Parts: sequence; structure tokens; C-alpha cells
Amino acid sequence: MKHLILASTSTIHGSGYLEYILPELDVFFNGIEDILFIPYARPGGITHQAYTEIAQAGFKNINKTVTGLHQYDDPIEAITNAKAIFTGGGNTFLLVQQLYKNHVFEPLKASILRGAKYFGTSAGSNIGGLTMNTTNDMPIVYPPSFKTLGLVPFNINPHYLDPLPNSKHMGETRETRIKEFHQFNTQPVVGLREGSWLEITSETITLRGHLQARIFECGTPPYEVDTNADLSDLK
Amino acid sequence: MKHLILASTSTIHGSGYLEYILPELDVFFNGIEDILFIPYARPGGITHQAYTEIAQAGFKNINKTVTGLHQYDDPIEAITNAKAIFTGGGNTFLLVQQLYKNHVFEPLKASILRGAKYFGTSAGSNIGGLTMNTTNDMPIVYPPSFKTLGLVPFNINPHYLDPLPNSKHMGETRETRIKEFHQFNTQPVVGLREGSWLEITSETITLRGHLQARIFECGTPPYEVDTNADLSDLK
Repeated sequence: MKHLILASTSTIHGSGYLEYILPELDVFFNGIEDILFIPYARPGGITHQAYTEIAQAGFKNINKTVTGLHQYDDPIEAITNAKAIFTGGGNTFLLVQQLYKNHVFEPLKASILRGAKYFGTSAGSNIGGLTMNTTNDMPIVYPPSFKTLGLVPFNINPHYLDPLPNSKHMGETRETRIKEFHQFNTQPVVGLREGSWLEITSETITLRGHLQARIFECGTPPYEVDTNADLSDLK
Repeated sequence: MKHLILASTSTIHGSGYLEYILPELDVFFNGIEDILFIPYARPGGITHQAYTEIAQAGFKNINKTVTGLHQYDDPIEAITNAKAIFTGGGNTFLLVQQLYKNHVFEPLKASILRGAKYFGTSAGSNIGGLTMNTTNDMPIVYPPSFKTLGLVPFNINPHYLDPLPNSKHMGETRETRIKEFHQFNTQPVVGLREGSWLEITSETITLRGHLQARIFECGTPPYEVDTNADLSDLK
């Protein structure tokens, strides 16, 4: 029985850390006091401890206690025993490399599949998909694989960004990049705009937040789905 | 004796393919008729043949003949015999994966070090650096290594983009990404803006084009260098 929230971002413009999604998290983590935080993605290269303190301050607003995975002598045991897990954003290459290096990739997946509640933002949501091939991050380290947890049967592109009108920059748009991805991979990609999240309860996948999401299926033109859309059949 | 041009981009806004740099290429390839084109990066997923035809049309303006590497039965022999090589942009992960898969990585490096003239744009310039860890591209395929040709003793970030004023998007800026890179890697990074290129003659490395470049050295604040700056001591 899966219970997941996979969010595009931790923070929306002009708002505090997790602020936009705290009411949702309050309901999602109802009855849970302690949340295990995976700080491996280290946004901007901050330390595990500094990152954990940011997560602690965010969750304090809904009276949850947060402990960083780096604080445990045995991270596998910590993940196995956790009732609720939060993986924050940062660099997906680093996050995935560290999950493999610390041998917590399979325990994390097993724990979530047994029912531990899982909340991810950005890189932490990316790893909920089949692979990390649709991350936006810079490949600052070389992970042993791009395979991720496969908690949903598609890939996620967090921080999905529409083409900027009047841009004179010649780098690829996000849509062009995902089109390139589909030359070599067949799974769908959900482009999650900032402020959107996927709510997964057992096998039901629902788009939440105020915005539409953009869906990319291999071989067909991309299309928009409205908030509250049921994405359970996307695979 | 190395002769290289590593350009940020093939195309600047409002101008045709290679148009801005054709006068430079005309001088650089003086005395050479045939250019071997490496089409592996496949921008937007186009075929090797379609990509080669774009390169052919571009170089026709300075009366050069272009042949795609995919047209040869023996790509190693083609690279070993080439007097001039051009690698176009697209996806760096795909380019690097294909260089390794087709066993042309070492022959390409050897050919350039023996004196074959090399021109790269975007992904084709990225591979001139020590590693591809500072590419902007989406990791659509998994290459066997992030190590690249090391023709210059630093990394390159092509299409370097300054932070957008007033952006409400919460994804990392380019500068933040390179800062994260320097948490795990020590080599300098040259942020090459569109319209800039590096000219390498033997061990002399010079910034060309009209714009400044942004230099990131590990442990010190980034700084700007002017066009025609000598970057030979950057390592």
C-alpha cells in the first residue's frame, strides 16, 4: 500500500520553505510524529546537517520532528524502521549516487512498498520515477546507474518550464530535451510545474495543486492535463 | 600541435547555422577541403544523415566538403585519417556514449593531438574539456564514463547563461550548479556565452568573440575575463 506525495518543488516564488504545501502535508502525515529526512541531494552543496535543519524548521510549522539520515550509524536500519520519509531536492546525480553508495536504494524502495509514507520534492520526486533520465540537474558526480525507485510507472520532470517567450538563448527548451529523451526511451514523462504534485494512494495517481501538468508520451504530441486529473493509467 | 576552436554554440539568435563564426572558420580551415563531421549528438533526435546535411549546408558557404562519420564503414580509420574534424552540438550524454560505443574516443583524441584541426560547438566543445560534468544537457542515455577528451585542462560550460533578472522559477541558476560541481571536483570551469569561443594553438588558449567569459575556480569567487584574454594558465 503506497502513500506518496511527489512534488515539483519545495518552495514556490515569494513563499517560505514548504509553505505552499504544509496544509497538505499536515493531512498526509496525520498521526505521525517523526519524519526521516534524506539530505543527500545537498542543494548548493550545503552539508547534510545544514540541510536537515532547513527541513526541521519547515516541518516544525506542523509540529513534526525531523531526523537526518546522516545522524544514524545504520542508515539501512533507520530507513527500514521509518514510518515516514522525506527526500529533499538538490542535485539528482548526487542523491542517486549516495543512495547506491550507502546501500539504501533497495531498503528505501522496500520500506515505501511496505507502507512508509514518502514525500519527495524536486530530486526527491525524480527518484520516484522509473529512471533519473529526465532530471534537469548538472551531472556533477557519476552515479552507478540512472535507475530510480519506480514507484510510479513513468518518469518525472520536476520544475517543468514552458518555453520562455522572446528568449534569445539557443539552449534547448525543456520540451526539446524530453523529445530527445523519447528517441531512446519509451516511458511517459510527467512535466510537473512548480506548485504541482502527484498524490499516490495505492495504485491511484492524482495530479494536485493549482496548475496543469504537461504529459509527454512517446510517439504522440504532448498534452495538458488539469489539476485533479487521474493519471493511474499512464504507463 | 593542437589546433582547436571550441565554440559555445553553432548558432546565435537571429543568424543562420554557423553564420557568426564562418569568417573565423574560413581562416582556421585554410588549405583544407574536406571536413569529417561527427553527428552523434543528434540535436532534437534528428538522424545522423539529417544532421550531416545541416553541417554540409553551413560549410558550403566557405566551400568545404563535409562527410558524416556514419557514412564510413570504419569510423576509427576515418578519424585517424582526417585532417579536420567538426563535432556538432546536441546531447552531450548521447555524444559521449556513442564515442565510447563506437570505440572512437581514443582515436579522436590521438588524431587531434597529432595535429588534425578540431572544431566543436556546444556538446562538441564540452567534450574538449576534462569531463562532461558541466554539461547542461538532459541525461537521456547512460554513458560508460563522464571523462572526455581533456584537450584543455579545465571544464567548459557552453551556452553559459547569467541569472535571469526577475525570474520566478525556483530551479538552480547556472552559477549555483557550477558551485555544486565544485563541491566534488577541483578543475576550473569556463562559462562560455553564446557567440564566444576558445581558440587553442598548441598550448595557447585564447578567448574569442565579442563577449566576456565567466571563470569559476574552486574555492574562489567567479570572475569575468575579457575577449582576447589568455587562458593558457588556467588549470
